[in-house]
Amino acid sequence: MRYIETLKDGERISEVYYVKQKQIALTRTNKEYGNVILADKTGQIDTKIWDLNSGGIQEFEVGDFVDVSGQISSYNGSLQFKVERIRVANEDEYVISDYVPSSRYDVEDMFKELLGFVDSVKNEYLKQLLNSFFRNDEIFVKAFKNTSAAKTVHHGFTGGLLEHSLSVTRLCDKMAANYDYLNRDLLISAAMLHDAGKTRELSEFPKNDYTDEGNFLGHIVIGYEMVMEKIKKIEGFPEILKLEIGHCILSHHGELEYGSPKKPSIAEAIALSMADNIDAKLETLREALEAKDTNDWIGFNRWLDANVRKTI
Amino acid sequence: MRYIETLKDGERISEVYYVKQKQIALTRTNKEYGNVILADKTGQIDTKIWDLNSGGIQEFEVGDFVDVSGQISSYNGSLQFKVERIRVANEDEYVISDYVPSSRYDVEDMFKELLGFVDSVKNEYLKQLLNSFFRNDEIFVKAFKNTSAAKTVHHGFTGGLLEHSLSVTRLCDKMAANYDYLNRDLLISAAMLHDAGKTRELSEFPKNDYTDEGNFLGHIVIGYEMVMEKIKKIEGFPEILKLEIGHCILSHHGELEYGSPKKPSIAEAIALSMADNIDAKLETLREALEAKDTNDWIGFNRWLDANVRKTI
Amino acid sequence: MRYIETLKDGERISEVYYVKQKQIALTRTNKEYGNVILADKTGQIDTKIWDLNSGGIQEFEVGDFVDVSGQISSYNGSLQFKVERIRVANEDEYVISDYVPSSRYDVEDMFKELLGFVDSVKNEYLKQLLNSFFRNDEIFVKAFKNTSAAKTVHHGFTGGLLEHSLSVTRLCDKMAANYDYLNRDLLISAAMLHDAGKTRELSEFPKNDYTDEGNFLGHIVIGYEMVMEKIKKIEGFPEILKLEIGHCILSHHGELEYGSPKKPSIAEAIALSMADNIDAKLETLREALEAKDTNDWIGFNRWLDANVRKTI
Amino acid sequence: MRYIETLKDGERISEVYYVKQKQIALTRTNKEYGNVILADKTGQIDTKIWDLNSGGIQEFEVGDFVDVSGQISSYNGSLQFKVERIRVANEDEYVISDYVPSSRYDVEDMFKELLGFVDSVKNEYLKQLLNSFFRNDEIFVKAFKNTSAAKTVHHGFTGGLLEHSLSVTRLCDKMAANYDYLNRDLLISAAMLHDAGKTRELSEFPKNDYTDEGNFLGHIVIGYEMVMEKIKKIEGFPEILKLEIGHCILSHHGELEYGSPKKPSIAEAIALSMADNIDAKLETLREALEAKDTNDWIGFNRWLDANVRKTI
Amino acid sequence: MRYIETLKDGERISEVYYVKQKQIALTRTNKEYGNVILADKTGQIDTKIWDLNSGGIQEFEVGDFVDVSGQISSYNGSLQFKVERIRVANEDEYVISDYVPSSRYDVEDMFKELLGFVDSVKNEYLKQLLNSFFRNDEIFVKAFKNTSAAKTVHHGFTGGLLEHSLSVTRLCDKMAANYDYLNRDLLISAAMLHDAGKTRELSEFPKNDYTDEGNFLGHIVIGYEMVMEKIKKIEGFPEILKLEIGHCILSHHGELEYGSPKKPSIAEAIALSMADNIDAKLETLREALEAKDTNDWIGFNRWLDANVRKTI
Amino acid sequence: MRYIETLKDGERISEVYYVKQKQIALTRTNKEYGNVILADKTGQIDTKIWDLNSGGIQEFEVGDFVDVSGQISSYNGSLQFKVERIRVANEDEYVISDYVPSSRYDVEDMFKELLGFVDSVKNEYLKQLLNSFFRNDEIFVKAFKNTSAAKTVHHGFTGGLLEHSLSVTRLCDKMAANYDYLNRDLLISAAMLHDAGKTRELSEFPKNDYTDEGNFLGHIVIGYEMVMEKIKKIEGFPEILKLEIGHCILSHHGELEYGSPKKPSIAEAIALSMADNIDAKLETLREALEAKDTNDWIGFNRWLDANVRKTI
Repeated sequence: MRYIETLKDGERISEVYYVKQKQIALTRTNKEYGNVILADKTGQIDTKIWDLNSGGIQEFEVGDFVDVSGQISSYNGSLQFKVERIRVANEDEYVISDYVPSSRYDVEDMFKELLGFVDSVKNEYLKQLLNSFFRNDEIFVKAFKNTSAAKTVHHGFTGGLLEHSLSVTRLCDKMAANYDYLNRDLLISAAMLHDAGKTRELSEFPKNDYTDEGNFLGHIVIGYEMVMEKIKKIEGFPEILKLEIGHCILSHHGELEYGSPKKPSIAEAIALSMADNIDAKLETLREALEAKDTNDWIGFNRWLDANVRKTI
Repeated sequence: MRYIETLKDGERISEVYYVKQKQIALTRTNKEYGNVILADKTGQIDTKIWDLNSGGIQEFEVGDFVDVSGQISSYNGSLQFKVERIRVANEDEYVISDYVPSSRYDVEDMFKELLGFVDSVKNEYLKQLLNSFFRNDEIFVKAFKNTSAAKTVHHGFTGGLLEHSLSVTRLCDKMAANYDYLNRDLLISAAMLHDAGKTRELSEFPKNDYTDEGNFLGHIVIGYEMVMEKIKKIEGFPEILKLEIGHCILSHHGELEYGSPKKPSIAEAIALSMADNIDAKLETLREALEAKDTNDWIGFNRWLDANVRKTI
Repeated sequence: MRYIETLKDGERISEVYYVKQKQIALTRTNKEYGNVILADKTGQIDTKIWDLNSGGIQEFEVGDFVDVSGQISSYNGSLQFKVERIRVANEDEYVISDYVPSSRYDVEDMFKELLGFVDSVKNEYLKQLLNSFFRNDEIFVKAFKNTSAAKTVHHGFTGGLLEHSLSVTRLCDKMAANYDYLNRDLLISAAMLHDAGKTRELSEFPKNDYTDEGNFLGHIVIGYEMVMEKIKKIEGFPEILKLEIGHCILSHHGELEYGSPKKPSIAEAIALSMADNIDAKLETLREALEAKDTNDWIGFNRWLDANVRKTI
Repeated sequence: MRYIETLKDGERISEVYYVKQKQIALTRTNKEYGNVILADKTGQIDTKIWDLNSGGIQEFEVGDFVDVSGQISSYNGSLQFKVERIRVANEDEYVISDYVPSSRYDVEDMFKELLGFVDSVKNEYLKQLLNSFFRNDEIFVKAFKNTSAAKTVHHGFTGGLLEHSLSVTRLCDKMAANYDYLNRDLLISAAMLHDAGKTRELSEFPKNDYTDEGNFLGHIVIGYEMVMEKIKKIEGFPEILKLEIGHCILSHHGELEYGSPKKPSIAEAIALSMADNIDAKLETLREALEAKDTNDWIGFNRWLDANVRKTI
Repeated sequence: MRYIETLKDGERISEVYYVKQKQIALTRTNKEYGNVILADKTGQIDTKIWDLNSGGIQEFEVGDFVDVSGQISSYNGSLQFKVERIRVANEDEYVISDYVPSSRYDVEDMFKELLGFVDSVKNEYLKQLLNSFFRNDEIFVKAFKNTSAAKTVHHGFTGGLLEHSLSVTRLCDKMAANYDYLNRDLLISAAMLHDAGKTRELSEFPKNDYTDEGNFLGHIVIGYEMVMEKIKKIEGFPEILKLEIGHCILSHHGELEYGSPKKPSIAEAIALSMADNIDAKLETLREALEAKDTNDWIGFNRWLDANVRKTI
Repeated sequence: MRYIETLKDGERISEVYYVKQKQIALTRTNKEYGNVILADKTGQIDTKIWDLNSGGIQEFEVGDFVDVSGQISSYNGSLQFKVERIRVANEDEYVISDYVPSSRYDVEDMFKELLGFVDSVKNEYLKQLLNSFFRNDEIFVKAFKNTSAAKTVHHGFTGGLLEHSLSVTRLCDKMAANYDYLNRDLLISAAMLHDAGKTRELSEFPKNDYTDEGNFLGHIVIGYEMVMEKIKKIEGFPEILKLEIGHCILSHHGELEYGSPKKPSIAEAIALSMADNIDAKLETLREALEAKDTNDWIGFNRWLDANVRKTI
C-alpha cells in the first residue's frame, strides 16, 4: 500500500483509494471534468479527471474504493493527482484498515473487558438490559465496535466509541469504590450505554459523518430512545430504575448548554457526567500531544482553552 | 362555597377544602399535632389540628377533599384555621372547579378550534398522527384539557396547556401565511403537539406538581417519545418527516440553555420556537398586569427582565 | 449587459461597471498603478490599470459608473481585469438595477400594501405621524424604498428595508388579532417605523455601507430621533403615547446586549421585538438555503447558530 | 426637628414629616383606615390613621409635608406611629434639607468649580453648548443641583448628580493631561454632560423615583436628546463634533449590556466611560464603608462583587 | 452534655457553650444589655443578658467557652436563652468535640492512609516535599487535621480538609492507573497538597471563618506559596518539576472564573482539577441528602444547579 | 542599515538580521534546505538556504544576529530572501535598537520620573520595598527597562513595561488627589510594582515570548512572589500592609475571568485595576490608529470590541 502522506511530485501511481468527494465541474472553456477527493487513513489528495470520456474512466461514486492510475504533480504548493484510469476496486483488492484511522488498542480485547463489566452487574434487570445490547444485538455490537466517538475531536477513529465507553466505565467503577453511596450497578450500566446513540448519530468509517438522525436528534436522545426500547422488552423492569438510567443518559453532558436536556439530579448522573468529561479532556490532550511530538509548548488548544504541553 | 380569600379572623367555618400538605409535628411539650395546608382556587390557609385523638378527627391524606369545621384566628399577622372536626368529603359534596384556577376560555370551545386545525392539515400522515392524539386517545385528550402549561409561570391553570397550544398553533398558522416557504402542515402539526409531554411532566390539578418522570426526563423528551410511539403505529409514515417533526419538538425551546437538546435546524422549527416564546412572554405579561390592576409601573418582572406596565 | 459572474479568462470586454474601491499603488519598481474593484449586482472583479498616463485613462472616483475596455485574465486562480480605457459613463448608458441586488418583490406593490396599513390606523395622532413619514416626506420615502435592511446579513438588497418593515408589520397585525389586549394602532405604527433609522445608518446602494452617523449613533437612536422630530410638529400628540412609541423603537432589539438601551416594558414593545426577530431569522435561513440550492445539510450558519437544511 | 431615627416606643410626637406612601385599607372588620409611610432624611416610619373621620384628620396627598401628632408604639419589633391629628404643613413650617439626604460638599462650591471647567474649554462651539446648559438654562441648573445620581446605589442624595459629574470631569481633565492624543475640550465637555439626562430620569427629592420618561427611555437617550436640542440652536456647530459628543454620551456605560446602544469608538468615549466607572465604584465603596464604620471585613458587596473592607 | 438542638421552652439550663457573637446593645429605655449567640455542634441559640451588672455575670469574649445558667423561653417562634449567671469555663469542663461538627471518619485512620500515599511516591524530590509537610511540619499537620475544607459548602467540618484531600488523592491514584500517560508521582503529590492553603485561609473550629490572609489572597495563592517555600529548602529540586507542581496547585479550580489564575496546561493539572470537582460535587450531594433524609425530591440545590434526590 | 520593510524584488542584499525561526526541511526531492525567518524592527522576511553545504554557509541558531548575503525575489506575491552566505555577526557589527521596536519615550527619562514617584512615598516600609526593586536590584532594573508589557497587544515594544507602569502610576497619583480616602502611598507603590512579574513572564527582546514560568504561573503570581520575597527582607514590614499590597497585585486584572485569583477588596485595589485598564485601552487604540493613519473608520478592533476611528 502506498499511503497518501508519502506521495511525491512527479511520481506515477497505481493504487486503491477511497472516494471521499466527487463533483462534475466546468473548465473556463466550458468542458466538464471530474473534481474528486481520494483518501486513505494517512490523508487525502485533490484529484482531477480531465478527460471524462477517456476509455479508462469508469463509473464510480462517493464511498467507493477505486483503483486509480495517473500522475502526481504540484499545483499552488499542494500535490494534485491527475487520474488517467479509474475503476471500482473489488473487495479483495484492498484492506479496509488502510483507509480508516483506528484505536491503539485491540477492539476484541476491549470488548472482552467490557463484557466483564457486564457480568459484574448484580441487578438482574440491568444485566438483562446490558446483555440485550452487548450480547444479543449483533447489529449494535458491530456498529459499537466500528464507530468513532466523534467526527473531529477526541476518539475520532474506528473503535473510538468502544475505547471511550470502556474508559468511562472503568472510571465509574473506580468512583463507585471510592464513594460508597453510589449505586455501582446503575452507574456502570449507564457508563457502558451513555454514548450508545453515537452508533446512529455517526455513519461508520471511512465516511464518519453525521447522519440525518444525528443532525436532527443528536446521540443523547437517540441513545435514550434505544435504551427505552430495549427496556420495554424486559418484563418487570422497575419503573423508577428505568427513569434513573434514562436520566443518566439524558444528563451525561452535565450542562444544558452542552446539549443535555436535564442537569444531573442523582449521584450516579453526576458521577457519569464527570467521568465522561475527564475521558474527553485527557484523550483530547493525549491526541494533541501525540500529533506534535515535542517537549515544548504546543500552543493554544481550543477544546482545553489553554496553551498546553507535555509533562516533563 | 366560602372561598379562602374571604375568610376573616374570628369566624367559625364549615366547608370542603383540598388537602395540599399534611405533616405530623411535635409541640414544645412533645405532643403530636397536625400541621396541614388547605386550599381552594383562591388561595390556601395554614391549618392546625391540635387534638388528633378527638372523636371528630378522621383519617385523610394529601390530595383528599375534606369537610372541615373549626375556628379562624389570627397568628403573627396571618390567618390560621383551628380544625375541630375533619372527614373526607364525598364526591357529590364539592365541585372540582372551586378548587382549581382555570382558563378564561371555555375548554370545549378551544378544543373544537384545535380540531379544526387538525382537519385543515392536508398531509395524510400528519393528519393521522394528530388524530391518533386528539381524536383517538381519550386518556391523552382528558389530560391535555386539564393540565396547566406550567407549575408557576404563565398558563398555570387548568386548560392552560390547551389554551397555550392553541394560541401557538394560531400564530404558526399566520406565519405560514406570511412566509410561503414554510411547510404549513408540518408547522401547525408540530405546534399542536409541541408541549404534549406536559401531560406527563405535570400532575393534574389540584396537585399540579412535577411528576418523577417530569423531573427526570422533562416534557421535551417525554413529548418527543409520545409522538414517536404514535408514529410507529402509522404505516408508511415517511422517515424524514418523522425526523423533522421530532426535531421540531426537541428544539422548540430554541436554545440549548433552555433545555432543548438541539437548536432549530429547519424553518418550521425556528418558527415554532419563536411562536412558543411570543405566547409565553405575552401571557406572562398579561397575567402580571391582571394581578396588579393599575396604570402605574408594576415593578421588575424577572421572567421579562424589565420593569413593566400596562399600555395606556 | 455582460454580468461579472459570466466573465471568462481570455475575453476582451467593454462594459459599464460600478467603482467600489480605488487605490493608487506602487509596483515593485516604484511605478504607480491603479488598483480598482469594479462591481455589478452579480459580483465584483479585481481590476488593474497599469498605465495611468495612457490617453484612454480618464479621471473617475469611487461611486462612479465607468465605461471600461480591456482584457480578462487569470491570476492566482482568480480572474483579473486589465483595463486599457476607462471613462465615467453617462446616466443613459446604464440601468441602475443591473448594479444592485434587489428584492424579489415589486417595491411599489409593497409600498402600496404598507400605505394600506397606514390607512387602517384609527388613532388620529399615530395616523398623522405615519403620514408625515410615508406620504409627506419624499426624501424619506425614496430612501425607505431604496435602502437595504443590512450591510451583510438578511435583507441586504435594495428594497430590503421596505420588505422587512412590511413583513414585520404583517406579523404584528396578526399578533394583534390573536391577543386582544394588544393596542393594534400602536403596535403596527411602531412596526412600520421601527427601522426608519436605517435610512440614515446605511448609505444607499450601490455603496450600502455604514455612514458616520450610523457608526456613531446606530439606527435605533437615529430612528428614535427621527420619530420624535416628526411628533413635535403634531399638535396635541399625547405625551404618554409619544413615550410608548419611542420606547417601542428603542427596545425593538429585545435585549441590551443587542444594542437596545431599554428592555421592552409594554406588551407592544415585546410583540414588536419578537416579530422583528422572527422576520430576521426566517429571512436569514431563506437566503442561506437559496444560496446553496440543495436538499442536503448546508453546514453551520453562525447567525442561526446551527447546522441548517431545507425542509423536505 | 425630631428625626425619625431617634423616635422611641411610648413617646408622644408632634412634628412635620414627608408623606412617601398613602393607602386606604380595610381592617378585618371592614372598616377603612389610613396606611401611610412618613419619612425624613434619617429614615421612615410605618403610620396608621385608625379613625379617618375624626375631626383632627384633614386631607393630604403623597408628596405633601404634613404636621402630625400622635403616639409611637412598638408592633412586631418595629415602631409604629398612631396619628391622631394630621394637616398639610405650610412651607414655612419645615426646612426641606431635613427631609433629603445631601452631598457632603457644598452645592454652590461644586457648581462654581464646574463653571471653571466650562470656562477652560477653548472650542467655541463646545463652550457655547456648555453655557447653554450651565449658564443659560435655569430650570436645568436647578435640577442638576438637586437631583441624585441614582435611586439606590452610589450618589443617591441631593447634589449627587453634580458631585458625580464634577468628579468625572476632574478625572477626565487629568487623563487628558496624561494622554496627549486626547481632545481635552471634547472629553471634559462630554464628562460634564454625560448624565444630564438624569435630571429627567429621576424626580427630585424627596421623591427621588423614576419618572415615566426615565422608565421608558432611560437617562442615556434622554441626555443625548437634550444635548442634540441645544446643539441645533448653535449656528455652525460642526456636524462631526455633534456626532462625536453624541456618541460619547450614548456610549458612556461602556458596554451594550449596561444599556449603552453603542460601544465607545473614539478615545474620548473610552476615557469617559472609564472615568464614570471609576467614580461609581469608588463612591460605592466609600458609602458602604461609611455605613458600617469598622476596620473589619464588611461582607459581600454585590455592586463590587467582592467582600470589602477599609484599608488600614 | 445538653445539646442546643434538644432545648425546650420553659427549661432551666446550666451548661457550657461556645461564644460565637457578642454585642452590647441598648433597650428602648436606653439600658445596656448583652446580645450573645451561644453555639455547640448541633446549632446555636439567641442569648440575652439583661442585667449586665448582676453579680453572676463575669467577663467573657467571643471565642470563649462559657458556663451559663438561666431560663429558656420562646420569643417570636424561636427559643431564647435568658442568662442569669455566666463565666469562662475551665478547659477541663468541656470536650471540644461537643462544639465542632466533625468528619464521619477517624482522623488518624485517614492520615495514616495519606502517609501511605506519601510513601508510594517514587520521585525523591516529591517525596521529600511531601515529608516536609506531612511528617516534618507539626504545626501544618495539626492544622491540616483540624481545618474544614470550606466555611459553608461541602466538607465544612473538622477533618474535612483531610477527608477531601485524601479522597481526591485516591481518585487521582485511580486515574493514573487508567491513563498510562499520567505522571502518578506528580499527580498524587499535587492532590495531597492542592488545598494546603486552606490551613491558613480558614481559622480552625469552632470559629471556622476566613482569615485576613484568606480574604486578601485566597487558599490557591497561599498554598502555592507554602509549597514554593518548602521546595526552596530541598536541594536540587528540578526547576521544571517545581513549575509543574506549582502550576497544578494554581490551576486546580479548572477555570479562571473559579479563581484559578491559570487554566490547566498539563495532563496532571487537568486530572487534578477534575478530581477536585468530582469530590466537591458528590460530597455536596451526600450532605444535602443526609440533611433531608427522604426518598422524595429535595428541591433545587444551587451548588448542583438542579432539583436533586436520593437514588432509589 | 537596510530595513526589511524597504526591500524590493530583484535586489542583492548584504546586511545583519536577527534569526527568529530556523528549521531544516526537505525538498520534494528529499534534499535538506534551511527554512529561516529573519527579522528587524520593521518586519520579517521568509528566507531560504538551498545549499546548506556551500562554503559560505556557517552554523547559526535562533536568537543569533547573522550577516547574510543573497538575492531578494518574489514568490506567491511575497518577497523571499535566497541566502548564499551567512555567518554569526560580531556584537560590534549591529546596533540592537535596529532590531527591536521601542517606546516613543526615552527609557532613562521615564525611569527618572518613576524614581521621583518612589521618592514621594512617605511610608518607610513601602519606600524600602520600592528601593529594593528600583534602586538596589540591578538585574530587575535592566529587565524592567527592556521588557515589553505584552507579547502582542498594547505596549509590545522594549521599554513598554516601564512606559505602562509609569503611566498607570501617574493615573493613580491623580486619583489619589481626587479621592481623599485613598492611601496614596499604597496605591502608587502597587502601581509601580503591579506588572513586575512581566520581567519574568516574557523573555527580553528581540525574542519577546512567554517563558516556561510565564506559561505555567503567569505574571500576576510571579510578581506577587517577587514582592513577597523582597518584603521578607524588610524588618518590621507590617503584616496587614504586606497583605494589602499583595492583594493589590493579585487583583489588578479586576475580574476572575481575566486571571486575577481575587477580586479587588479595598479601594486602592479597585483604583489600580481601573487605572491599568484605562492605560491598556487607550494605548491599544493609539497603536491601532497609528498603524492605519487615516481619518476614516479603521474597522472592528477585537480588544476594544468596536469599530474605531481617530477623533476629528
